[in-house]
Amino acid sequence: MLGKMMHRPLRISDILEFAADAFPTAEIISARTEGDIHRQTYPETRDRVCQLAHALQKLGVEMGDRVATLAWNGYRHFELYYAVSGIGAVCHTINPRLSVEQLIYIVNHADDRLIFVDTTFVPLLEAVQEHLPKGLTYVIMTDRDHMPATSLVGALCYEDLLKGQPQRMDWRDFDENTAAGLCYTSGTTGHPKGALYSHRSNVLHAMMIAVTLGNTFREGQKVLPVVPLFHVNAWGLPYAGPMAGLSLVMPGPALDGPSLFKLMDQENVYSAWGVPTVWLGLLAEIKEQGRKPNGFGDVVIGGSAAPRSMIEAFEKMDVSVGHAWGMTEMSPVGTHGTLPSFTNDWPLEKRLDLKQTQGRRVFGVELKIVDDDGERLPNDGKAVGELFVRGNAVVAGYYNNDEATAEALDEEGWFGTGDVASIDKDGYLTIQDRAKDLIKSGGEWISSIDLENAAMAHPSIANCAAIGVPHPKWDERPILVAVPTDSERVTLEELHELLSEHFAKWQLPDDIVWVDELPMTATGKVSKLNLRKALADYKHPEVH
Amino acid sequence: MLGKMMHRPLRISDILEFAADAFPTAEIISARTEGDIHRQTYPETRDRVCQLAHALQKLGVEMGDRVATLAWNGYRHFELYYAVSGIGAVCHTINPRLSVEQLIYIVNHADDRLIFVDTTFVPLLEAVQEHLPKGLTYVIMTDRDHMPATSLVGALCYEDLLKGQPQRMDWRDFDENTAAGLCYTSGTTGHPKGALYSHRSNVLHAMMIAVTLGNTFREGQKVLPVVPLFHVNAWGLPYAGPMAGLSLVMPGPALDGPSLFKLMDQENVYSAWGVPTVWLGLLAEIKEQGRKPNGFGDVVIGGSAAPRSMIEAFEKMDVSVGHAWGMTEMSPVGTHGTLPSFTNDWPLEKRLDLKQTQGRRVFGVELKIVDDDGERLPNDGKAVGELFVRGNAVVAGYYNNDEATAEALDEEGWFGTGDVASIDKDGYLTIQDRAKDLIKSGGEWISSIDLENAAMAHPSIANCAAIGVPHPKWDERPILVAVPTDSERVTLEELHELLSEHFAKWQLPDDIVWVDELPMTATGKVSKLNLRKALADYKHPEVH
Repeated sequence: MLGKMMHRPLRISDILEFAADAFPTAEIISARTEGDIHRQTYPETRDRVCQLAHALQKLGVEMGDRVATLAWNGYRHFELYYAVSGIGAVCHTINPRLSVEQLIYIVNHADDRLIFVDTTFVPLLEAVQEHLPKGLTYVIMTDRDHMPATSLVGALCYEDLLKGQPQRMDWRDFDENTAAGLCYTSGTTGHPKGALYSHRSNVLHAMMIAVTLGNTFREGQKVLPVVPLFHVNAWGLPYAGPMAGLSLVMPGPALDGPSLFKLMDQENVYSAWGVPTVWLGLLAEIKEQGRKPNGFGDVVIGGSAAPRSMIEAFEKMDVSVGHAWGMTEMSPVGTHGTLPSFTNDWPLEKRLDLKQTQGRRVFGVELKIVDDDGERLPNDGKAVGELFVRGNAVVAGYYNNDEATAEALDEEGWFGTGDVASIDKDGYLTIQDRAKDLIKSGGEWISSIDLENAAMAHPSIANCAAIGVPHPKWDERPILVAVPTDSERVTLEELHELLSEHFAKWQLPDDIVWVDELPMTATGKVSKLNLRKALADYKHPEVH
Repeated sequence: MLGKMMHRPLRISDILEFAADAFPTAEIISARTEGDIHRQTYPETRDRVCQLAHALQKLGVEMGDRVATLAWNGYRHFELYYAVSGIGAVCHTINPRLSVEQLIYIVNHADDRLIFVDTTFVPLLEAVQEHLPKGLTYVIMTDRDHMPATSLVGALCYEDLLKGQPQRMDWRDFDENTAAGLCYTSGTTGHPKGALYSHRSNVLHAMMIAVTLGNTFREGQKVLPVVPLFHVNAWGLPYAGPMAGLSLVMPGPALDGPSLFKLMDQENVYSAWGVPTVWLGLLAEIKEQGRKPNGFGDVVIGGSAAPRSMIEAFEKMDVSVGHAWGMTEMSPVGTHGTLPSFTNDWPLEKRLDLKQTQGRRVFGVELKIVDDDGERLPNDGKAVGELFVRGNAVVAGYYNNDEATAEALDEEGWFGTGDVASIDKDGYLTIQDRAKDLIKSGGEWISSIDLENAAMAHPSIANCAAIGVPHPKWDERPILVAVPTDSERVTLEELHELLSEHFAKWQLPDDIVWVDELPMTATGKVSKLNLRKALADYKHPEVH
């Protein structure tokens, strides 16, 4: 028997309509490509989103059409999220850090009709224009005064589009499963694959994280997404933020430590979200200034594992660390590191033990680990297996890619993350490694992430990656590739001493290779694929 | 084009499974009919809910079957919410304050298969047993030691049912629109009508209020629902509470001021939810004791309008008032009175002006007011019209009642609340009256609620109701029916002086009728229908 309740489609446009009604003074504050700080309230944003939606329809954009963006975090990018999805089209965010080949592949694979581009990225598009779909319309995200000279054919001006359009929209109803957003994985192997989000998945994801991360999502607070709007919905902030009455501070292109410090300090930002690399820069600037930015109390770290030393540095300055884990295919949040209040009076070390894990599932996400035969393993903190996930914000396949779709889910309909993990009895998830990054020495597995986290505690190591290199006897042996700080470099012997507390002798790296920088993926993670390529000629000390 | 995301049914059982995983130390604390205080954690509650679900299936309960409850707020009642809905059956909560005729009507109309009853209400059922469905199974909500002697045929013992059942359940998947709960309106005219909630509507309602009322729904806090689990899901707390990691303090039968004060004080309750009548009792006890209960910082008042004097009394003791409005047909929350943080430094009077309204919509509820022709009226704070609502937690009709269902929605699919209201430009809703309680004098409307709120400010008036009485010249004229305090009674002249600040002369009541108590409905509101009946022989002063 079914209930007798209304069925209203969960629609993304309803989030902004609510925010404009409920939080009339909350703002989107943007460091613009034009060089200044721009502020607009949610009611003002709604007006402009309605104008943009009307303009898109006038340009002939229809339900299901893909509209691409190539832009920094800013109010115009935010407006595109709502206007494009509001009329039933698909907002396809493109990561400008992808390779040129990947960019060309993606725009053609998505068959984008329009592409909205920040002035910064106009040259990038000009260079590949001839390889993009013929009918593609270019819109430059600035006003008439700042329009650059460009070879992009028929390029339109964003602010011109909005002019004269009505500031109200009667958002149409459609199936809540209608596609709303498209984001391609950076894909270390093969072509990028597109996660095709729906209105239902994005609205539910926003509610899930707003309910679970109550400390961040409090009305009136300012939150700064360093995590880009061009990748995985900026971890859901553009949806959950307005729903909960946050002001969003958009950093634009300047993501170095001093720039972030200055912006956070000026705007009294409470919470900032981003990948570990970004926080290395901010922590250096905090050290330089001898203080943290004004009002800073909460940091959400995801994208890759946060080293314990980083978590400790923040916690010691009363910045609560939410260590989160997720994937493009999960919209993206899967787990979070907010600790329950009964741990408040635990000693720091015991709290760090928990915060160093990937944390516990958010409401609406289920986790399971399985062995090689697909049999469930227990949540006992010991069993290690491949991690599968399930939930309304998890993909059931990929956009226009039958082959990848066929491989995405297991027989029970769970998504295979490609991560190898354990889960303890209280639900804390520990990602041991990407399945393909595990190091296999003499038939035993070694977690590269564990080695990296422990090595990062040494003051001479600014960043590092552990990888397996071929070895004639052991098959593979771990080495550490490290970026030095100004401190005196750690010797291999000293490193072994540091690590021996946590690792067996056979798990210790056989060598340290010092490099100026580590190769990064388009989403700010160390690219072990490229690192292994770069070290193709490396010879193991014993072999050498 | 549809997104490529998983579709998992929104299920009520997932809320408790999440709470048990995420908040292992949070508790349900119950003042029991057995006379003691009982405590159990969410993991313990999950164990027992699974046992109960297995027991129900063993008793032959199938998808869609109605399972009734007649019980106070307590852990067993909470367990029934989850076990019954978890197996796809319908938890039919019955209000024990309904008349005997209504009780008999409801149990037969719902065609309940089982009825779970607190020891308190066993005599009530015994008295009407012969009028209830023949196959009805009675389960008394206590353990073997406390089982009363009873004439209820074949009465079972709750704790006996659970014994030996498995403590885990593989909750089955079903359509998220599957019916989960049934609650009849108290119905001032005609038979009660059943609102049939679904898994989708209850889960979304829980997320909606947890997101919007972030101050109440903070992990680790204790919340006490005075509002009964036997009516409208206790305003959603049994679902939103566990989702957000609250501990719930269940007061059982003792809802007088001294009992509530003692329980709140002992348990350090942060937030308490209930109707205005309850708070009159608590405020009297607070005055008596010269202090508020330990830890008390938040009160949610709904069910009927809170007088300004009550809101002021709480705010002055640093208890934040969330003045909420809703209906059985809305699951029930529609609007809330949490003020945005930019009003924090406003003077108290200005904040009270807003808090005295019914507040603003929660995320997921839409409001409109229309004139007699169904045309939309503006949100300008002046236009007054009938209030319609829309949202996923609003009914689309009534259980097994085609006639009432046909009348429930307007042509656009909105639900008619029967309230007459205005909405200001910032979205604050003011309910002027129930449409049928408006007083019409000389062709002009007078709001009975406004008169009552203003009159309540006088120290001699403990409670009051304004009603229209027939008048030969003006059609109807307002009078005030008042319950006195110990203070010297206000004269009509003094009352006019008090009210003349807010009302035109012709709107002032023509008489004060002192009574010992006001007739109440089963949900704790003043029954104006019964009041008008009781005063059927009343003669207007001019006529008299």
